[in-house]
Amino acid sequence: MAKEFSAVELIIAKREKQELSTDQINWLIENYTKGVVADEQMSAMAMAILLNGMNRREIKDLTLAMIASGERLDFSDLPMPTADKHSTGGVGDKITLMVAPLVSVFGVAVPQLSGRGLGHTGGTLDKMESIPGWQANLSNLQMHEQLEKVGAVVCAAGSGLAPADKKLYALRDVTGTVEAIPLIASSIMSKKIAEGTSSLVLDVKVGSGAFMKNLDRARELAQVLTQIGADAGVKTSALLTDMSTPLGNKIGNSLEVEEAVEVLAGGGPKDVVEITIALATEMLRLSGKTDVDVAAALKDGRAMDKWNQMVAAQHGDPKAVLPKAKHEQVVLAEETGYLNQLDALAVGTASWRLGAGRARKEDPVQFGAGVILHAKRGDQVTKGQPLLTLFTDEENRFERAIDALSGGISIAAERVSGPELILDRISN
Amino acid sequence: MAKEFSAVELIIAKREKQELSTDQINWLIENYTKGVVADEQMSAMAMAILLNGMNRREIKDLTLAMIASGERLDFSDLPMPTADKHSTGGVGDKITLMVAPLVSVFGVAVPQLSGRGLGHTGGTLDKMESIPGWQANLSNLQMHEQLEKVGAVVCAAGSGLAPADKKLYALRDVTGTVEAIPLIASSIMSKKIAEGTSSLVLDVKVGSGAFMKNLDRARELAQVLTQIGADAGVKTSALLTDMSTPLGNKIGNSLEVEEAVEVLAGGGPKDVVEITIALATEMLRLSGKTDVDVAAALKDGRAMDKWNQMVAAQHGDPKAVLPKAKHEQVVLAEETGYLNQLDALAVGTASWRLGAGRARKEDPVQFGAGVILHAKRGDQVTKGQPLLTLFTDEENRFERAIDALSGGISIAAERVSGPELILDRISN
Repeated sequence: MAKEFSAVELIIAKREKQELSTDQINWLIENYTKGVVADEQMSAMAMAILLNGMNRREIKDLTLAMIASGERLDFSDLPMPTADKHSTGGVGDKITLMVAPLVSVFGVAVPQLSGRGLGHTGGTLDKMESIPGWQANLSNLQMHEQLEKVGAVVCAAGSGLAPADKKLYALRDVTGTVEAIPLIASSIMSKKIAEGTSSLVLDVKVGSGAFMKNLDRARELAQVLTQIGADAGVKTSALLTDMSTPLGNKIGNSLEVEEAVEVLAGGGPKDVVEITIALATEMLRLSGKTDVDVAAALKDGRAMDKWNQMVAAQHGDPKAVLPKAKHEQVVLAEETGYLNQLDALAVGTASWRLGAGRARKEDPVQFGAGVILHAKRGDQVTKGQPLLTLFTDEENRFERAIDALSGGISIAAERVSGPELILDRISN
Repeated sequence: MAKEFSAVELIIAKREKQELSTDQINWLIENYTKGVVADEQMSAMAMAILLNGMNRREIKDLTLAMIASGERLDFSDLPMPTADKHSTGGVGDKITLMVAPLVSVFGVAVPQLSGRGLGHTGGTLDKMESIPGWQANLSNLQMHEQLEKVGAVVCAAGSGLAPADKKLYALRDVTGTVEAIPLIASSIMSKKIAEGTSSLVLDVKVGSGAFMKNLDRARELAQVLTQIGADAGVKTSALLTDMSTPLGNKIGNSLEVEEAVEVLAGGGPKDVVEITIALATEMLRLSGKTDVDVAAALKDGRAMDKWNQMVAAQHGDPKAVLPKAKHEQVVLAEETGYLNQLDALAVGTASWRLGAGRARKEDPVQFGAGVILHAKRGDQVTKGQPLLTLFTDEENRFERAIDALSGGISIAAERVSGPELILDRISN
């Protein structure tokens, strides 16, 4: 029989900087899921964890307890290894769309269970749903069959995975306890491990448009994430990548699908291609495929073939015309010089306000809304040239979107270089 | 109009060790009282306050906001000054019963709004209610009239005083956030200041049987309490008094009334008399009465007269026989030597388990249950002599009461002296 504890006793222990035992953590999460531990108790615990921390073992136990609160998928009967990728979220981050088909080209299956967007970063499902006919919801059996047949699937994460995490995440959101690394890390990893992948590459974004604003915090998170992976027997590594400026030239749902298709056709923006290849290479490396030419699979159409199969398998039409916004407005360069700042948060917020994102999880998104960038950070620009174009179905949204951009764009006579695109790689 | 804030923003500010403004604290307490700020948000805030603290101004603002959440009594139209006393709670602490009539002898009115006991320390109302006929509940008008006519009143604090504190206290109790000095201090002082007294003496108990286990924490609490008093315009001072061993010889409801009457009759145990006189003297000093012989009023029956009037005014019969427990059991000394340890928490817990206290606030208490001490800490005792007698209406309670005493009593060949009774006096 599981040991019995009291919630107050456990909160006080963490409040007094004590280590919680495996039994205590299991009891806490099991009883929080059941409603025996009340929300007001869990929020006090979350604040105590945020301020006093958890050690590696506690974080592992917390992650495993959240996994144990729900179902766990198992792809071990597939004839090929599986690799998953998770991004902590960024502006213009459509990498999943290319990486899933690209990696599957090399005989590694990619089960990419995804979510919808909330806030200024988009959600992979919202992007995919802009493809006419495409269905996000698959049964476990359908997912299995698609992985076996196509080798790649992007679909909605079922509600049965880590329900404790879902409950805790909603609570943290309203109690000022989101920014705790043990809680962030166990939240990400419980879902990913429950999804049953055998290896996992994390794209930890750093910068204004990311959850982690500075490199030290991002590195700390990446280390904790990869430790959990190692402790839970999932091969895990992390890339730290820049999110101080948007990724690619297109931000928004159908706009990002367009750009993904450009990359899968062997073109697309340099930064998007670079990160796609880096992440795919890392995913393949963890699955033991080190001698593969990833870039070639983008150039020669093999990745595009997989994309077409993957979209079609979920009733999407890869040839369909994507939704376009009803209205557009061009923002011009106000000066001549170098575009030294093109802030990810500013552009992400503008895209969000244009309708690409949602404020509450019940809200719909506009598939065509978003932003196209005509210049990237570091580019030389001339006064009066188009800098970016805003898209929305509702004209009255332009004003607040333009407000969001103010202070986020700067042009100067001298070129100032921004951070590297790939800042670090962490494995455990 | 009051400014608007968001609960999450305020929680994050305190989490990040920022100072909350007066407007922010007012908004928080007002909206918590109304239910706009949810329990889970307030518990995260309470944990952040516990771990990151509050400065003097924040604590004052928190106290004033809790007072503003309810009604505030006003005794300024009485023809005499008012003085109140508050004890942080101890075992055998019946001092209120003597101090209220004693101070009123000298023309200072004592409005003693009290509570019921929870846990191992008794409640003043439970003790008074052991007097046949005595009524705890008075209207504000009745309280006023009794103060004017008799000069002393012990009654139930109305539910209209500091309702925010009541709500927050219940929340802290289940979320491991009781032990925060800013929260403890504002809780005590909001009720006491709302009660409308012009001066206040705090009896801050220190030791195993008290809320504050060590002198440093007790001194810190006393300083914060007296600062709040000063900041709110109430003359306030604090005595730090020992609670490592019980006060007096009788612990329990009717047993403590018996001992109070002994003291009011000019007798009673030395420690109880000493603290009664010290607290009464301090209350009178704060009301400008410095040249009074407090001890004389105990000896010559003036305090007893006031007691009789005070009890009778609330329909109690001061001459009635008090309830006795049905069963008693004597605990004998197991050795000969000095009684060096007679632990307050052990005796308090024994008395509680005998039925003198309650586990949940809905539970009744046994009026006759409790403990009589036949030897005090430091006394010489002989093997086989009675050390204490336990009283209860339910014989099956003896076993767990005796369990509570184990480890709390020790007899040794050499006498070891305990702490002084009055440890410090703090005023601001």
